[in-house]
Amino acid sequence: MKILVLNCGSSSIKYKLFDMTTKEILAQGGIEKIGLVGSFLKLTLPNGEKKILEKDIPEHTAGIEFILNTLVSPEYGAIKSLEEINAVGHRMVHGGERFSESVKLDKEVLDAFAACNDLAPLHNPANLKGVNAVSAILPNIPQVGVFDTAFHQTMPDYAYMYAIPYELYEKYGVRRYGFHGTSHRYVSKRVCDFLGINPEGSKIITCHIGNGGSISAVKDGKCVDTSMGLTPLEGLVMGTRSGDIDAGAVTFIMEKEGLTPTGVSNLLNKKSGVLGISGVSSDMRELDAACKEGNPRALLAEKMYYYRIKKYIGAYAAAMGGVDVILFTGGVGENQSQCREAVCDGLQFIGVELDKEMNNKIHGDEAIISTPESKVKVVIIPTDEELMIASDTQAILNK
Amino acid sequence: MKILVLNCGSSSIKYKLFDMTTKEILAQGGIEKIGLVGSFLKLTLPNGEKKILEKDIPEHTAGIEFILNTLVSPEYGAIKSLEEINAVGHRMVHGGERFSESVKLDKEVLDAFAACNDLAPLHNPANLKGVNAVSAILPNIPQVGVFDTAFHQTMPDYAYMYAIPYELYEKYGVRRYGFHGTSHRYVSKRVCDFLGINPEGSKIITCHIGNGGSISAVKDGKCVDTSMGLTPLEGLVMGTRSGDIDAGAVTFIMEKEGLTPTGVSNLLNKKSGVLGISGVSSDMRELDAACKEGNPRALLAEKMYYYRIKKYIGAYAAAMGGVDVILFTGGVGENQSQCREAVCDGLQFIGVELDKEMNNKIHGDEAIISTPESKVKVVIIPTDEELMIASDTQAILNK
Repeated sequence: MKILVLNCGSSSIKYKLFDMTTKEILAQGGIEKIGLVGSFLKLTLPNGEKKILEKDIPEHTAGIEFILNTLVSPEYGAIKSLEEINAVGHRMVHGGERFSESVKLDKEVLDAFAACNDLAPLHNPANLKGVNAVSAILPNIPQVGVFDTAFHQTMPDYAYMYAIPYELYEKYGVRRYGFHGTSHRYVSKRVCDFLGINPEGSKIITCHIGNGGSISAVKDGKCVDTSMGLTPLEGLVMGTRSGDIDAGAVTFIMEKEGLTPTGVSNLLNKKSGVLGISGVSSDMRELDAACKEGNPRALLAEKMYYYRIKKYIGAYAAAMGGVDVILFTGGVGENQSQCREAVCDGLQFIGVELDKEMNNKIHGDEAIISTPESKVKVVIIPTDEELMIASDTQAILNK
Repeated sequence: MKILVLNCGSSSIKYKLFDMTTKEILAQGGIEKIGLVGSFLKLTLPNGEKKILEKDIPEHTAGIEFILNTLVSPEYGAIKSLEEINAVGHRMVHGGERFSESVKLDKEVLDAFAACNDLAPLHNPANLKGVNAVSAILPNIPQVGVFDTAFHQTMPDYAYMYAIPYELYEKYGVRRYGFHGTSHRYVSKRVCDFLGINPEGSKIITCHIGNGGSISAVKDGKCVDTSMGLTPLEGLVMGTRSGDIDAGAVTFIMEKEGLTPTGVSNLLNKKSGVLGISGVSSDMRELDAACKEGNPRALLAEKMYYYRIKKYIGAYAAAMGGVDVILFTGGVGENQSQCREAVCDGLQFIGVELDKEMNNKIHGDEAIISTPESKVKVVIIPTDEELMIASDTQAILNK
């Protein structure tokens, strides 16, 4: 079975084609600058080489068509005919309270998804464009939606509600939803296989740390809390996002700077985080370089970034009544040994003993990086959201 | 030595007169509705009886004058002459980054304090009015300012900075300041005396839980983190305040409800918290009654209130690399055994063992409520901010 996974943004489409028998990636790439000057498709050839194909791509249907044509092209193709593709799995951002698992996409489902547009005005409509484009070109292919928010739907109400007038929840659905759910689900499941433990009875903290970042508390295989909220702004310090901040500071800044809600939202989402504090970069590798040069604001940003993660680990251990596994994933979580060491430092009191040598060795592989004696296992599991989407799609097709 | 302690709000003045030799309260009461119809002074007589004296009180100087006259009045007086009062200590709200300890008030200090008005536009000007009123009536009496924010000035930068553009810190002082500092300082010090331990080397989490609430992490006798922020809105779920909330939810609500910064600030400060969720009351006793009747929203509010405290304890234990003492104070913390039990439940993994029987017995007294075996001591210390203000005032006078 071959499954095409799509992640459609407002001006981009990423794709991966999986052979589900071998879990092999047959083709992958992405389109950028849809509707803008200079749009192109960038693909990775089987030998790892990158290839850029420039083309005018005015909207999503043209983009999907270009991807499909490339998949079967004589020069860069991975398959002979589009009929080889059995299904398409979509990353879909905000499933609101309606979607707690992946579903086959039909009109009723798409209407329910569109009803969540308000909660993710940039992402959901783009996801829908992708689905509609596929329907237009391959009207009979089964399509499955995999929601960023679904895994978090098991949170108890006292974890997902904000302490604001209850009517705002009833009227607009203002509550914590969480994001990166497909990643948290994949790694929290995968780590149990990897360690040979049962999800039932296990208390796992999954740290998805990258340019965006979120942490989840996973008990008995179910998410019980997560750091992102109604929007992906809450929680950790991120590349350009502030994460947690006093709501009183938000209105204070608006008044001082004369900002509208959109203006302060831009400031907190795009000009804050590691970039805002350091003034250097939103990229942790560039931040690291600035730290090595002794840049004091870069050093401060780094400390804040680590400290926030550490506090969430403590909070979620308390929420679950303990922790058995702390798991790192995501670009930074998988690759930056320094981040993992800084976060684990001082957690000895809950039974965390990092094997520093092992920690320094591992970049992007599955590994236990705590000592054999450590009560809490510290583990790296590279995330694979696309494979998870493909697997969900396959499972739904096989039902 | 006799010291008068004043807490001046925008339309109220609370006072306590201490005999510092015995620490006895010689007189106490408060004025309410200054500048409004129906203003009055309510005092507690030595036999505990309350007495209300109605009087037109157009502004703070008239209020202070009325308090001073009452202190020496033949009927309700506690002293014979105003000359018996050696000094006045003021609760002052926002000392910004300037004040890390209590100080004698002079023109230079008051100018520096007034420069913090922006950070507490409701409180600081009212505090100043009180100081000026005393100066007008008793021009030669020494006055001391004790700041709500001062104790928290020892926080490291990575704990007090928000991950927003650094310029906002430089231009407006946007950062975490924390409040209830006088209470956190008093109880974190007092608990060391009570337990016979040295502040140096101790990791203490002080939970000041009342209608307003905040938690501090106190290491080596110094505050290293606290839950309130730039404003007293951040952190715990409170009577009418939301505490922590996604900044993305703030702008979302503003747009949906067409609110200005002031409008959403009112919503989050005055209509949220336990009141907003339950729809019943901001008072934990009334909430408790509704919970006993099985009101589902009251039960939800209670769970959220407890859960948030528990998560902060976990976060601050992680921040300090462990915890030796968890301390409860404030109206709810001192009196609600159910709150303390719910918060400690599930913290066994860090060595908390509550003595439930003892916990149920204690209301408002100093006590250890953990078992003798508990690795972490759980303690109740009733707070006494006014005595702390009087003690600071005395100490500065004796310098």
